[in-house]
Amino acid sequence: MRNIKLVIQYEGTAYHGWQIQPEVITVQKVLLDGLAKIIGERVKLSASARTDSGVHARCQVVSFKTDSLILPGRLVRALNGLLPDDIVVVKASYCPDSFNARYSARSREYRYSILNRSFRSPFDLRHCYFVSYPVDVDAMKEGAGFFLGTHDFTSFESHFGKRDNPVRTVEKLNIFSRAGFIRLDIRANGFLTYMVRIVAGTLLDVGRGKILPGDIREILKARERQRAGPTLPSKGLCLMKVFY
Amino acid sequence: MRNIKLVIQYEGTAYHGWQIQPEVITVQKVLLDGLAKIIGERVKLSASARTDSGVHARCQVVSFKTDSLILPGRLVRALNGLLPDDIVVVKASYCPDSFNARYSARSREYRYSILNRSFRSPFDLRHCYFVSYPVDVDAMKEGAGFFLGTHDFTSFESHFGKRDNPVRTVEKLNIFSRAGFIRLDIRANGFLTYMVRIVAGTLLDVGRGKILPGDIREILKARERQRAGPTLPSKGLCLMKVFY
Repeated sequence: MRNIKLVIQYEGTAYHGWQIQPEVITVQKVLLDGLAKIIGERVKLSASARTDSGVHARCQVVSFKTDSLILPGRLVRALNGLLPDDIVVVKASYCPDSFNARYSARSREYRYSILNRSFRSPFDLRHCYFVSYPVDVDAMKEGAGFFLGTHDFTSFESHFGKRDNPVRTVEKLNIFSRAGFIRLDIRANGFLTYMVRIVAGTLLDVGRGKILPGDIREILKARERQRAGPTLPSKGLCLMKVFY
Repeated sequence: MRNIKLVIQYEGTAYHGWQIQPEVITVQKVLLDGLAKIIGERVKLSASARTDSGVHARCQVVSFKTDSLILPGRLVRALNGLLPDDIVVVKASYCPDSFNARYSARSREYRYSILNRSFRSPFDLRHCYFVSYPVDVDAMKEGAGFFLGTHDFTSFESHFGKRDNPVRTVEKLNIFSRAGFIRLDIRANGFLTYMVRIVAGTLLDVGRGKILPGDIREILKARERQRAGPTLPSKGLCLMKVFY
């Protein structure tokens, strides 16, 4: 039995997220079908993050155990020959038996991209959320500071995603603006359902002056979804890094 | 009568190029239909370049004469409200009566983008041509020099595009490589059918060692399409600038 780790990238536009579900196309399903054709075995795939419908990944880490003796380099070429254009395997390697892409991950980093100028971009329309109103990026940066550290993120979780433990630790939340794009880079030990998109929506409310940076402290305390800002569209979200 | 100039961008993937043709969707058709809804008039549109099927534009200049009194700023907002996501109007302005987007243009600049690494990119698949074999960019740069100046470009014209005068002047041909992408920026007073894509295909043949940089001199002299390299796919090509 070998334990194999894959690093994959995908443009999520055409997929109902990572996780296998009946009657829809998901990244996990496409990858499992491809693997089955090559190694003749339906493996159990573990992934660093269950990205939602329409969310992209520049670095999704996946692992599985197999009896196949296929060499990692050969597996990459075979998979990339079979997979559709919007999913690609960047590399494959053997890893220790104890490694599990999901349970071994200590933290994940996502990027949310907002295009902020007077006209939308035909070239980036699948990878960012477009707003034409004026946005105060410095206010957003100030607001971002309140998310750092360990908090109960109930206010920033989708109503239909409730988990037992809503406490998460945000290790990094950087915001920068360049060439019309505002990027939010957020790293945490884990994320609640829609958490990044609600955090981004709330910070955008700060940027447009609808709420003040300091209001975020109160919203966290309130533990009520309706106190936070809107859930921004999935197309602006991308899984960027996983830390083990 | 007012003469109005538009600067537009489009992702050409979904379109059969700029020029109106029966039974297919073209950028010109979509723009004309949108304009007709706003100004109540079917105008005659002139464009700086007739981009081919699947080719993109970051700066397509378009002009038309109209009796409408609509203000340029209002026209931009109205058009962007009607146009599909993959076509956008960047700006509109009045221009002198003598200005014609096509006939006033002195030169056009295109970019051809090649992704050159071991794995393709799900995020750039609509905007570049992917090759995984090793490419010698310095050899391509050396080859590029032979295109500069005024030449008969018959060897670099599609068989079904023959024009009366195959002589064109290439004012610039820069090649640079960054983050896995090789970009060819080419500026000329005009281009024959598929000329940029055949020039790029021939330079890529130089880069992969199939021909030598100096062979380009002979290929130009030969005036035979079959002597030059392949026509690279349209998705790597983008109209970047127009000079008046």
